[in-house]
Amino acid sequence: MARVSIAGATGYTGIELLRLLVNHPEVEIGSLTADSHAGKNICEVAPSLKGWVDQTLVELTPDAGKECDVLFLALPHTASMKYVPELLQGGCKIVDLSVDYRLREAEDYRSWYQTPHLNPELLDQAVYGLPEIHRKEIQTAQLVANPGCYPTGAILALAPIMSQAWADPATIVIDSKSGVSGAGRKLSQGTQFCEANESVAAYGIGEHRHTPEIEQELGRLAQSEVRVTFSPHLMPMTRGLLTTAYIHSTQAMARVTLHQRFQNFYRREKFVRVLEPGGYANTAHVAGSNFCDIGVQVDTRNQRVIVTSAIDNLMKGASSQAIQNMNLMLGLDEAAGLQVPPLFP
Amino acid sequence: MARVSIAGATGYTGIELLRLLVNHPEVEIGSLTADSHAGKNICEVAPSLKGWVDQTLVELTPDAGKECDVLFLALPHTASMKYVPELLQGGCKIVDLSVDYRLREAEDYRSWYQTPHLNPELLDQAVYGLPEIHRKEIQTAQLVANPGCYPTGAILALAPIMSQAWADPATIVIDSKSGVSGAGRKLSQGTQFCEANESVAAYGIGEHRHTPEIEQELGRLAQSEVRVTFSPHLMPMTRGLLTTAYIHSTQAMARVTLHQRFQNFYRREKFVRVLEPGGYANTAHVAGSNFCDIGVQVDTRNQRVIVTSAIDNLMKGASSQAIQNMNLMLGLDEAAGLQVPPLFP
Amino acid sequence: MARVSIAGATGYTGIELLRLLVNHPEVEIGSLTADSHAGKNICEVAPSLKGWVDQTLVELTPDAGKECDVLFLALPHTASMKYVPELLQGGCKIVDLSVDYRLREAEDYRSWYQTPHLNPELLDQAVYGLPEIHRKEIQTAQLVANPGCYPTGAILALAPIMSQAWADPATIVIDSKSGVSGAGRKLSQGTQFCEANESVAAYGIGEHRHTPEIEQELGRLAQSEVRVTFSPHLMPMTRGLLTTAYIHSTQAMARVTLHQRFQNFYRREKFVRVLEPGGYANTAHVAGSNFCDIGVQVDTRNQRVIVTSAIDNLMKGASSQAIQNMNLMLGLDEAAGLQVPPLFP
Amino acid sequence: MARVSIAGATGYTGIELLRLLVNHPEVEIGSLTADSHAGKNICEVAPSLKGWVDQTLVELTPDAGKECDVLFLALPHTASMKYVPELLQGGCKIVDLSVDYRLREAEDYRSWYQTPHLNPELLDQAVYGLPEIHRKEIQTAQLVANPGCYPTGAILALAPIMSQAWADPATIVIDSKSGVSGAGRKLSQGTQFCEANESVAAYGIGEHRHTPEIEQELGRLAQSEVRVTFSPHLMPMTRGLLTTAYIHSTQAMARVTLHQRFQNFYRREKFVRVLEPGGYANTAHVAGSNFCDIGVQVDTRNQRVIVTSAIDNLMKGASSQAIQNMNLMLGLDEAAGLQVPPLFP
Repeated sequence: MARVSIAGATGYTGIELLRLLVNHPEVEIGSLTADSHAGKNICEVAPSLKGWVDQTLVELTPDAGKECDVLFLALPHTASMKYVPELLQGGCKIVDLSVDYRLREAEDYRSWYQTPHLNPELLDQAVYGLPEIHRKEIQTAQLVANPGCYPTGAILALAPIMSQAWADPATIVIDSKSGVSGAGRKLSQGTQFCEANESVAAYGIGEHRHTPEIEQELGRLAQSEVRVTFSPHLMPMTRGLLTTAYIHSTQAMARVTLHQRFQNFYRREKFVRVLEPGGYANTAHVAGSNFCDIGVQVDTRNQRVIVTSAIDNLMKGASSQAIQNMNLMLGLDEAAGLQVPPLFP
Repeated sequence: MARVSIAGATGYTGIELLRLLVNHPEVEIGSLTADSHAGKNICEVAPSLKGWVDQTLVELTPDAGKECDVLFLALPHTASMKYVPELLQGGCKIVDLSVDYRLREAEDYRSWYQTPHLNPELLDQAVYGLPEIHRKEIQTAQLVANPGCYPTGAILALAPIMSQAWADPATIVIDSKSGVSGAGRKLSQGTQFCEANESVAAYGIGEHRHTPEIEQELGRLAQSEVRVTFSPHLMPMTRGLLTTAYIHSTQAMARVTLHQRFQNFYRREKFVRVLEPGGYANTAHVAGSNFCDIGVQVDTRNQRVIVTSAIDNLMKGASSQAIQNMNLMLGLDEAAGLQVPPLFP
Repeated sequence: MARVSIAGATGYTGIELLRLLVNHPEVEIGSLTADSHAGKNICEVAPSLKGWVDQTLVELTPDAGKECDVLFLALPHTASMKYVPELLQGGCKIVDLSVDYRLREAEDYRSWYQTPHLNPELLDQAVYGLPEIHRKEIQTAQLVANPGCYPTGAILALAPIMSQAWADPATIVIDSKSGVSGAGRKLSQGTQFCEANESVAAYGIGEHRHTPEIEQELGRLAQSEVRVTFSPHLMPMTRGLLTTAYIHSTQAMARVTLHQRFQNFYRREKFVRVLEPGGYANTAHVAGSNFCDIGVQVDTRNQRVIVTSAIDNLMKGASSQAIQNMNLMLGLDEAAGLQVPPLFP
Repeated sequence: MARVSIAGATGYTGIELLRLLVNHPEVEIGSLTADSHAGKNICEVAPSLKGWVDQTLVELTPDAGKECDVLFLALPHTASMKYVPELLQGGCKIVDLSVDYRLREAEDYRSWYQTPHLNPELLDQAVYGLPEIHRKEIQTAQLVANPGCYPTGAILALAPIMSQAWADPATIVIDSKSGVSGAGRKLSQGTQFCEANESVAAYGIGEHRHTPEIEQELGRLAQSEVRVTFSPHLMPMTRGLLTTAYIHSTQAMARVTLHQRFQNFYRREKFVRVLEPGGYANTAHVAGSNFCDIGVQVDTRNQRVIVTSAIDNLMKGASSQAIQNMNLMLGLDEAAGLQVPPLFP
């Protein structure tokens, strides 16, 4: 049994990690940290878990790295990098759910997050934790940067075609629709029920911090620089993330050919479901699961390929993907603890 | 491995049964029936299950009772009783999710459902499948009548006090709030999104068909006739059922005494969580689980006891309770396949 | 044209007042205060009003009472009473939307709000602003205490029967279901989208601060002391307040008799709609309007009368009722500016 | 007073027309038709309107065209054209809310709707009822084809730039997000609450029937053929339609220049609100109103212009726009009956 701790256990991704870990066959729960709630029982802050965990929340200290085999960091952006170097010295493996180790270039980090990276030397060592793309490197990594929810949906939607000659990378538009839980559990005006309900709006177009992460990974796949227009939108729902990705084709494309390409690309993947030809990905069909559903369409009148992908932003977009990464890092069955069908309706 | 079939597999309770059964360690899935969709693959009608089941839907025939160990009937009210006698002769055990075998008196059936019962002789033999109350009889039953969602919430809320001298059974008011999925998957005007969203209303006060079921079970517990005012309400949410039960006390009650009474009553129950004193049951904290959360309050100014209970209407209110019953009938661990924490948020 | 100012213009009730006042034929908007946003344009905080108002928010000062004919106070509880005496001296009429002047007894105020009233001498002078009950006094009042949303729904539901001999006031249970906007616009964990969505729960049973207000007014109508069990619940919707009120009848009641009683009682009221016999009040049918819909039911098996009432909590439960009061205070048509049908769906 | 009738009065757009017309200063309501509900009182089917209208629904007959000044047709697609010729002979003016007279070319109609147009000779005579673009022709038209909700949002978003040399019309992507009420009131599986709630998905990409309407109008503005990729999505909300429109610029664009272009283009329009630079259109800020809010963004890294527009699909996307057209056709103030601020929250 691996001993697993969570830093930031009382946010939505922390609670989701706990929900999955209590049923994982190969792990036991170590310490749970939450600086602002230290001293409380976890169930005071996460009543859904009553009867499953019964631990007192503690503050995060560097010793956390010595007392567990795997440590999940579910901390705010720019917080993780303050702790990671010392924690790694403790010997544990780390899955960091923040953005801090996702970009390979310290310069990109500085320009998109407007603060210098505190330990750029670790960026080379960190592996981008999208198993469908980087499975091998994850298996041997000590530090995995768990992808953002938007990048997970966008990269999986486009990965099968980035290396295709007909796909023009200069024409990529990624229009994403996220449930409110993607904004985390901290209080804000825009995520109050009465402001978010019956409300659909875009935000951060052309400047959202997930942009460089998408471009980095699509660029690796295309083996060339890729720039995308990325438009995130907030949806009046709790969970779910739909990505509608557009790319122009330099030649006429048949839907059946395109569909086969996707099926081939993901044929060995347990957690990607390529829908039947003509099918549209729907957030309601993946809720509570680690699945990414993918639907492929061709607008033949305009030679444009449209791919829709649906994930649960707290699962494949965060916590269940983090556990998928942990499984790989520990040499376990990649699907251990993640074999649950979606909750519908 | 027990072989388990489902009649009515494409409604919400049918899909929920499937979701749970595919992960149940002791069963294999038998045939799935859905008359209106016979010939289709189950995943055309339940896309969330893609990758988990891959069966062709068939029509329900009497032979279904021979080809499985347990048969779940997720059929409309008054439909089950047309099939049950023949199906039982096939030798299988049956968990019927309809109302057809819940009332012990054929006369009650006739007067509340306005149609005579087709096989009243089976009513004695059928066991009311609320494990917290009838565990022993369920273990040896061949036919279990799975409780309605409203009765499950109401009976569990009041069971601990029905036999108390201070509780005046003539004063019981049960105000229940159900998510829309309780109305099933068939089309209706009132369950269209635009009619149900931002809408809260009562319906069927004093005449809802779950009333006699609640009265029968509370009466058994009180060992006297009990009549309740039952007011169901439809809520703008998918899952969840909150019951607010009111009963007058003939003497002053301390909340702490009352709370202890509840804790004692349910101390051996895995799936009932009595909240801390002062806690309120919340549907959001039980979603996707087999839990019934219970909060107890005393309005000391009025000597009135108020109990709130929360369940997931498709789980403890239907499908997971059906599996709990199946586990008991098969002599398995009562919690097999049901050990999942709630999904929050 | 009367000049009308609003203190606390950027909360939900403040914005709703503005939405109604800009179309009111007999008023012009005076100053808008919002201490925390002073200096900003109102449309920065209320973008829906762009093109309708274009004022800079200011701080509330005692002078506000001199510069307008009517002042609406949409301030937090216990804040109003700090300002009211000075403001009244300015000569304006005041409609206070807080609880501060609703209770006639300073002692009740102290015990329910746990702070002494700062100007108890004003309590006699203040009129409880429920026009259907206190129209005459409102017309001559300088200070009107606008009722709470819960009390409005509860009192209108029970007013027609409080003086009836058959109605046993010791048996009143009021089970209320409110949209989230009832909690106001300030940030809180429980009103975050992901916590309130798909969540139904009670809170404050037996101790909610609207209780004494309900009891005071029902007691006046019954001409005797009345105590109720009041159970507020939070619903996953933005607007709407459904009240389900229960009262025991000491004699058999026919629904038709009861229905006539309600129709008679409200026959001259423009803003109360007594539904057809058998009808249930529904929040979706009053949204955006000043209506209170009322449905009456009898549980003949238990001699219990059940009344459901539906209001829009921000309208008849707050801002449109405040304008109804203003109209009366100014001698205008009571319905001026309020003649809008509900928004459905 | 003009006499106004509605054919199809019990659908969502019919009810919305009624809601607006009862408060319109210059009209009186004529007959209300609804074939499936003929003989019922309108309030049985539209309870929100109780107290506002009290008419018996009738069947639609050709005489309807003689008995009113203006007739709104809120009928299903392909139904309108069966009635229009005879109705026009009655002498009334018609605003048709269906697609039947929106396309100028009968051939386009046939190919997109897969049925021949029954009276193609009327297509030239019909005016496309988007007042911001075709105000003059609407004023003298006898038959106005009210635009679809998606086209209204898309055309208003792109109209100011279609004639700009820098805007490359071959690169237009229109990603639209609609509330469920856009699908109308008839029963369907996909619009049941439990299927639509917590669900976001695209549908009809590249083949939705609103596509040719968008292309026709954008083409007129660009004075060249325009083809777009149009992707409609269904949102878990009742009202609201957000359009995110993407177009590539052949030269570097400054946001401020772009913003000024929009402000100029719409400077005389009462019902288009161009948001401050950097602002994003939000469906929650236009609900219940005739406004179209527009936000303009530039992705300078990719020389791509992104415009977001928000409308209430039942208002500016259907019924209030229909009344705006009626006002123009009758020579009334264009804004008569439409001067209501949005309902927020």
